[in-house]
Amino acid sequence: MNKSPNVVWQSGGLTREDRERQNGQTACVVWFTGLPCSGKSTVAHAVERTLYDEGRRVYVLDGDNVRHGLCGDLGFTLEERNENIRRVAEVAALLCDGGIIVLTAFISPLRSERSMARSKLPSGRFFEVFCNADLAVCEKRDVKGMYRRARRGEIDNYTGISSPYEAPEHPELRLDTVSLDVAGAAQAVIDMLSDAGILSSKKPLFPQSGQKKKA
Amino acid sequence: MNKSPNVVWQSGGLTREDRERQNGQTACVVWFTGLPCSGKSTVAHAVERTLYDEGRRVYVLDGDNVRHGLCGDLGFTLEERNENIRRVAEVAALLCDGGIIVLTAFISPLRSERSMARSKLPSGRFFEVFCNADLAVCEKRDVKGMYRRARRGEIDNYTGISSPYEAPEHPELRLDTVSLDVAGAAQAVIDMLSDAGILSSKKPLFPQSGQKKKA
Repeated sequence: MNKSPNVVWQSGGLTREDRERQNGQTACVVWFTGLPCSGKSTVAHAVERTLYDEGRRVYVLDGDNVRHGLCGDLGFTLEERNENIRRVAEVAALLCDGGIIVLTAFISPLRSERSMARSKLPSGRFFEVFCNADLAVCEKRDVKGMYRRARRGEIDNYTGISSPYEAPEHPELRLDTVSLDVAGAAQAVIDMLSDAGILSSKKPLFPQSGQKKKA
Repeated sequence: MNKSPNVVWQSGGLTREDRERQNGQTACVVWFTGLPCSGKSTVAHAVERTLYDEGRRVYVLDGDNVRHGLCGDLGFTLEERNENIRRVAEVAALLCDGGIIVLTAFISPLRSERSMARSKLPSGRFFEVFCNADLAVCEKRDVKGMYRRARRGEIDNYTGISSPYEAPEHPELRLDTVSLDVAGAAQAVIDMLSDAGILSSKKPLFPQSGQKKKA
């Protein structure tokens, strides 16, 4: 384990199990990965809202938000992105230790980064969710106009344009965010957590969800 | 605000107020500061246990623990210690945003660092608690044998020995951890939070607390 010199583990009084008992849930990390505009944050926030309404303790760590604070000192070279993901993985693990269901929404383009994040969690507590959408679709969505700027050469190291994305080979869940609507995608995540025993009941939390209607 | 280039704030669906309502408490950061062995972690964990037993959502961020993960890449020069505290302050602010009462136990030797940490929180949500004990007393406690090693020159930049500590001028609470026992110190912290309206009731949570008996 990577640690500073001359520090000794301070065992706190409370354990993750204590906090899980208090919250009436199993803590875990749901790690959304995918190209920019593939729906990571949108689906994560929909899941967050649904779980919150059910009385769960849940928190979204979001790439843009974390980069205003904890990782505000980092740029977008592969090395800096790697450090960004390392810190996020550590914070996700801390929140999980705090008994919370953590949803992270980061491009996290490299398999090695996601594997590192997984290694911070106990077995069975890390769920990799691949938001799968073709680059062409994501580029067309271009919510913040970043793809256009990257194509014009105004942004370096933009994933999908000038920086690589390695799709997961064996994610816990593959979300086709082109054919699914937000509610359907969120329901799939919740079903995954229910099936894994993270949530106690498996009643449909998005009764109106399903495949997007053909317009 | 320090932030990476080309990021836009992603407003999440849930607010701190939503989570505070769910948890039935006001989120805040209680920032313990003081020399090594001045009682920061011990008192923080006693407060954590008491608040947990009362049904509060509470979490201790501890210097030794964080340095095994998030800050495991950092050493102990003043510059690295400053970066350590910056990251901890950001994580404390995140946890507070998550509706949690956060207790941080870090030497945090410089006034500028603690002022920076305070600036990450909304007004009235940051409580600086000074664990006040003479260097001679702390050095005698020397729980982990670090003072001895620092005196022998085996550890560089050890606070109180070879690195400065700036005592707070106007902390929210000054704990005399020489005359108070752990329960009494924890009760003083809880009284402070009650007086500030952070906790709803003000019944004594440590009925057995008080001044340490003279042996």
